[in-house]
This record gives sequence, C-alpha cells and structure tokens, in this order.
Amino acid sequence: MGCIAGAGVSGVSEPWRAMFFPTSELGRRAVARCDALGVIPYSEDADHLSRPYLTESHRNALHCIKTWMTAARMGVRVDPVGNLVGRYEGSVPGAPALLIGSHIDTVRDGGRYDGALGVMLGIECVEALAAAGRRMPFAIEVIAFGDEEGSRFPVSMLCSQALARPMDEAALLLADEEGLSLRQALYDFGLDPEKIAQATREPGQVLAYVEAHIEQGPVLEAENLPLGVVTGIAAQLRLKARFKGVAGHAGTTPMHLRRDAVAAAAAAALAVERICAAGPPDLRGTVGRFITSTAAFNVIAGETEIGIDLRAGSAEIRDAAAAEIRAELGAIAEARGVGLDFTVVQDLAACPCDPKLVSLMAEAVEAVGVRPFQLLSGAGHDAMAVAPLAPVAMLFVRCAGGISHNAAEQVEPGDVDMAAHALIAFVERLGRSLS
Amino acid sequence: MGCIAGAGVSGVSEPWRAMFFPTSELGRRAVARCDALGVIPYSEDADHLSRPYLTESHRNALHCIKTWMTAARMGVRVDPVGNLVGRYEGSVPGAPALLIGSHIDTVRDGGRYDGALGVMLGIECVEALAAAGRRMPFAIEVIAFGDEEGSRFPVSMLCSQALARPMDEAALLLADEEGLSLRQALYDFGLDPEKIAQATREPGQVLAYVEAHIEQGPVLEAENLPLGVVTGIAAQLRLKARFKGVAGHAGTTPMHLRRDAVAAAAAAALAVERICAAGPPDLRGTVGRFITSTAAFNVIAGETEIGIDLRAGSAEIRDAAAAEIRAELGAIAEARGVGLDFTVVQDLAACPCDPKLVSLMAEAVEAVGVRPFQLLSGAGHDAMAVAPLAPVAMLFVRCAGGISHNAAEQVEPGDVDMAAHALIAFVERLGRSLS
Repeated sequence: MGCIAGAGVSGVSEPWRAMFFPTSELGRRAVARCDALGVIPYSEDADHLSRPYLTESHRNALHCIKTWMTAARMGVRVDPVGNLVGRYEGSVPGAPALLIGSHIDTVRDGGRYDGALGVMLGIECVEALAAAGRRMPFAIEVIAFGDEEGSRFPVSMLCSQALARPMDEAALLLADEEGLSLRQALYDFGLDPEKIAQATREPGQVLAYVEAHIEQGPVLEAENLPLGVVTGIAAQLRLKARFKGVAGHAGTTPMHLRRDAVAAAAAAALAVERICAAGPPDLRGTVGRFITSTAAFNVIAGETEIGIDLRAGSAEIRDAAAAEIRAELGAIAEARGVGLDFTVVQDLAACPCDPKLVSLMAEAVEAVGVRPFQLLSGAGHDAMAVAPLAPVAMLFVRCAGGISHNAAEQVEPGDVDMAAHALIAFVERLGRSLS
Repeated sequence: MGCIAGAGVSGVSEPWRAMFFPTSELGRRAVARCDALGVIPYSEDADHLSRPYLTESHRNALHCIKTWMTAARMGVRVDPVGNLVGRYEGSVPGAPALLIGSHIDTVRDGGRYDGALGVMLGIECVEALAAAGRRMPFAIEVIAFGDEEGSRFPVSMLCSQALARPMDEAALLLADEEGLSLRQALYDFGLDPEKIAQATREPGQVLAYVEAHIEQGPVLEAENLPLGVVTGIAAQLRLKARFKGVAGHAGTTPMHLRRDAVAAAAAAALAVERICAAGPPDLRGTVGRFITSTAAFNVIAGETEIGIDLRAGSAEIRDAAAAEIRAELGAIAEARGVGLDFTVVQDLAACPCDPKLVSLMAEAVEAVGVRPFQLLSGAGHDAMAVAPLAPVAMLFVRCAGGISHNAAEQVEPGDVDMAAHALIAFVERLGRSLS
C-alpha cells in the first residue's frame, strides 16, 4: 500500500524504487506465491503441506519457481544437490555474487512461509532491480535450497552445507524412511551424485549471504514490529537426561519406599525452566521430550528420559546454564536415590551475523520506516550452514502468534511488503558500501 | 523346615498337623508347582511367562492343576466360565463351602507366583486335611480363576465376578486383540456360553472366601515379616489431567512468553507426590503416565496428559486427596495460563475384609509364630469381585523387593511354608468358630 512511499527516509535517495513497479504489491505477490506452493502438486499430500527434499513435490516446485525467476530476468540452473539458483548479473558479468537464499522443503504438515518466503522475497528484490533496469556492482543469486529441515534424510541443512563444503560420502549413504539412499534419490531426481562437489562455491565468488525468514517466534509480535534484524543464530546444546529409579506397583508401594523416575524427571524439568528463566533474556531451556518406560496408570515408572534443549547467543551463557542444570539434576537424583545419565546429543556453536551486514540491514529496516530492532535467532537457519563460506545477515518477518511448522503459520502481506523493500534497501546499501 | 513344629502356640490343639505329612515341604511343593507352571506348555511363549485366559496354555494348566487337586482328594470340575473348581466335602456332604481361590492367568511377561501361588496354597491346605483324614463342618473348594488380570479381554476379574453375578451379554461381546469375542473364545475352549449363568453361586452355598497372594509390594520385606494379614483392598481413583498450553519453538520463544504444557504437568506430578506423601500412610498417589503431544527436543509441548492413580483404605481419605490435588492443579494451570481438563477414568470402592475373618487370620498367623501385622492391599484382587457374594479374607506372602508382573518375581519357600500352615490354621479356627 502507500506505507512504503510514505516511509521515505530523509537523506536516502532511491529514485528507482517507486517509479517502475507497484511497490505495494511486492508483499502480496510474495505471499500469494508461497500460498500457491502450499498445495498439490507442490505438496505430497492434499490435506496438509509436505514438501520433502528430492520428491515429486520438490521437482514441481522447482519448475514453478524457475518460471518466476526467469520472469525476474534471472538465468536459472539447478545445482548438483538440487538447489535452484537464479542469477542476476551485476554491472560486470561474472562478478562475485550476493546470495539471497532460503529453503523450499517443509516439515511434514508444515507452514507455507517457513523458508519459501525468503526465496520469494529474493525474487521480488531482483525483479524490482530488473524492472528498474538496475545492475549492482555484484551479481545477485537467489537460491532455493532443497533441504534445510532434514525433510527426507535424517540430517538437516544438507543443501546449504553443500555450498560451503562438498557433501561427503557418508552423507550420500544416508537413508530415507524407505531405506533409499541419498545417492539413489539424487540419481532418481535426475542429478549426478558424482558431481555433488560442484555445488560447493569458491569463497572469492561469494560476496555475502542474506536470508529473510519468518521469525517462527513471538518476539516481534510482542514488540509490535513487522521486521527484526538478526544479530546471530543461537548456540544450541541438546542433552538427554535419563533417570533410573525402581519400577513399582502404584497401589502397593508406600510413598516413602519409592524411587519414582517420573517424579525425578518432573523435578528436573522444573529446574531447567527455573534456571533458564532466571538467566539472560537470550537463554532458553526447554523440556519438550518426556518419555516414560511405561505409560500405565498403575506403574511407578522405573525409567524416564527427558530431552533438554538449551540455546543462547553465546556458548558461554549456554554452557554456564548447562553446568548449573547438570549440578541441579545431580542433586535431585541423589536426594531421590535414583540414577542419572547425561548424554550430549547435539552441540552447535553460535553463528554471529556479520557486524557490518547487520548494521546495513538495520539501516535498511529504518529506511522503510521500522524501528531497527535487533534479536537473536533461537532457531537454526541455512545462514549458519553458509557462514563458513561468506559473511551472513538475516532479516526476520513477524509471524502470527510465533506459530510455525504448522498449517496455522501466517504472515501479514503488509509486513512482507516492508521486508521486500528492506531487502531492496539492503542491496542498495551494500552496493554503495562497495563503491 | 522345623519352624512350624517349633512354632506351636500353647493352648491350641492341632494334633493332626505334624502326624501325617511332612510339614516342612508344603511351601517347597507349592513353589515348585508354580515354577512348573512357569514354562511351556503352561505359557504361550518360551522366553517369558504369558498365560492368558482361554488359551492353550490356560487349557494345559487346567489339566495339570486338575491332577494335583485330584491327588489331594478333591472332586474337580471346570465351571462354565473356565474356572477350575476342586471340592473337598465337609463332614456333611453338600454343606456350604469355604472358597480358597486365586487366579492362574498372568500378564504378558508376568511372574510365576502372582495368582498361581494362592491356588497352590489352597491345594496344600486341602491335601493336609485329606492326608490327616479330617473333614471340616464345611466343604472347601479350591478355585483357580481363569481371568483376573484382564489377560485376554479388556476387562479384569471376569471369572471371579462371574461367581458373584452372571456375566452379562455385553461381556460376551468383548473382543480380544485379534477381534475374537469372549463368546467365541468360550466356545472354542469347549465351554457353553449359554450356560455362563451357572458359574454364579448361591449365597447360601458359600460360607466365605479366602485368598493367599504375594504382596506385590515392599511393605512386608521392610517389616521383615513373611506374612501379612490384609485388612481390605484400597479404594482406587484414576484421573486424567490434560494441560493445554501453546506449542512453540524451543529456540524462538523467550521463557516469559511460554505456556509450556510439560512444565505445568511436571509441577502437577510433583504436587501429587507431595500431597500424598503428606497424607496418611495408606494414601498413595502415582503419576506413571506422562504423555506429551510431541516428543521433540525443539518443541515446547502444546498438550501434556498425566494419569493420576490414587488409592487409600477408605474412599474418604482418597477423595480428600483428590480434592486437594484438583485444587492444586487448577492453581498451577491458572498461574501458568494453561488450560486443564480432568477426566475420571476409574472409581473403585474400597473392599474391606470381613472383621471376623481378619481376626481369625491374625490368630492363624500368630499360630505359626509370626507377628500378625495388618496391612491394606493397594492392588486389586479376586477377593473384591467375590465380596458381594460372601465375606472375604486375604493373606499376603512377602515377595522379593516388592517386584511383581515381572520375571524377577520371587518368593522364599520358607515364607510359603508358613503361609500354607497359616491357611491350615485359619481353616481350623474357622471350623471351631462354627461349632
């Protein structure tokens, strides 16, 4: 709508912007395209959206998105791991590229905007430049990654990782639920598994990576802001804590003779919550996994396992919380006379965004009239897989209720419109920063 | 061994006891018979004990136990619901009977003594009387109930209930896991489903019911006692509490914006434990069932259901605890901004043992040299199903570690020997009380 034209920021000259295309429709079109991809044949299922890596729905989505990229005057190719890459040359052909990417696979019964929206916003950004006949001092490549969710094979971000380093032999042997290998799946998709190393980019050819993504959290909504500038992706630690008590009969075992694994695990879950709520605002601790050895009414559980997911902006904060949690859970186990085993399931380092790019993104957000609120991404994104290759930045778009990985996932076209214009402003500023 | 002869209680004349049979071997034989029934062909599986109602293993067990009953000079029949009934007439043929019973079905992967031991003890009791040529002023019937565990159909105590009231049409339509009806299963077993009403006894023909059973709990072991006199079977209440929070991403949702159903349920489980531990010793509260809507590390659970099992010697104590728990869980839900639904899944009244029989059993236990410790049964037993028909009493036998429903279930032959002699002493005293 008029929000963009009215949001002109003094001192910033972007004369091409309002002249060649209807600024108010970028967001509406990006949203409509995500919606169009939300149904058959771009989903494996009619009653919910599922678009796993290297499936028919993935292939159909590639064909469709290719036409949109082509319309935006990009040269399009599919790389050897199934990423769709649209390239819009800069003022000098063959110049290093700014990559604008996100993923187009979805979890089972996923939402329409998680991933896909970032790809559509990249296309809108290029289409705006192309419509204005603008060339930047760098090329722009819009990339639709085939896998970020681990949607078909039991490893996530397969496709964005392949940009930074060649996929190894072990990855090719990963099997899907039907036992089919990634190697075979690539082959069946029409790709050559022997050429996967060609998906990996030369660092000199990549200027930077930027990704727009729905927030998948409630912070922007709580701040009443359509956009957020991401400072980095949180360090993650996943622990399993397994309490071993003594199984018993619910009716025959007096309270004082019990070694109840569920009660110990319940005390542990509350300890995780208490410790993380008392920590810095970027610290998050979750017990979403709570598995009992029996699920019977009349059995005192002998074993209970909880999964603890810890995240923070830095490994220091995360690890300090983990140490406190380990100590507290140890004390709970000792007081209750139950055994306790810890296993580290996953340990991912934090991925800070590039400070210079963060500051350009903040300027761009301000340029579209939005307070440049900075936040940490608690969720992992393709940006962290690409980070070893090039400096990265991210832009978050508010989503309704923080809901994601769900059919109820929703965005406001107005917010998306602002995101498109913020991306364009970012590209502008990046160009100016190089000249 | 010599413990029984040495445990003679002054003033009690039981001259037949030590004269006609080796008193020290009763327990050993009862245990050995349970062990013999613990393997194929009396189990459906070779690697664990499973003897469900109306199966080949059940049929084989009937044949075997019938020979033991016959050897103990009982007349034996199988009633129309598959109960094996051995009758030892009293001094007047056709007199009302004292029933000594328990069940011979087992849970899947069950123990050898749960149920079967009570039947073997009944046989030992009759064998001792028969060997001594004694007739009581009442008949004795030893009954091996076909189902107490709900081992094949989704209702428990089908066979003992059938003694007190005719099995109804609805019960005959119950289906097992393969979809086969109880009616068909009875027919396939060689029984006549049209005659099931004939399993029901005339109250005038039943003097009393007594059941010996392993404790299935750790109380006697903690008291260092081989036997316990049961005062009654606990009142039971099963509640489901379902917390409805808001599902969220573990990484993107700050701690203060969460409505975490697992955390609410964890607080609830600890409240159940705290309230029941603070109550009278016979009050027991268990959360063994703890089910989350997702079991993922990275998802804040939107829904969590816990099962609450409450038991106490009286409905008053149980219901007071239930009211306190409901109030406390309501407060937890409100404080956390999550929804809460309660469902009553099961409500069983307490089943007190007959005071006169309890006092005779206490005397009998004392007569074999054991302190007559009284305790409540937290577990349900056939006695509660028979109670509407006749006054009931129960004798508990210590089991190792309170472990039951498990291959590790174990009893001491010496304890079982004392149980056999206590049962004999009980029969003696019941006889004297009638004369």
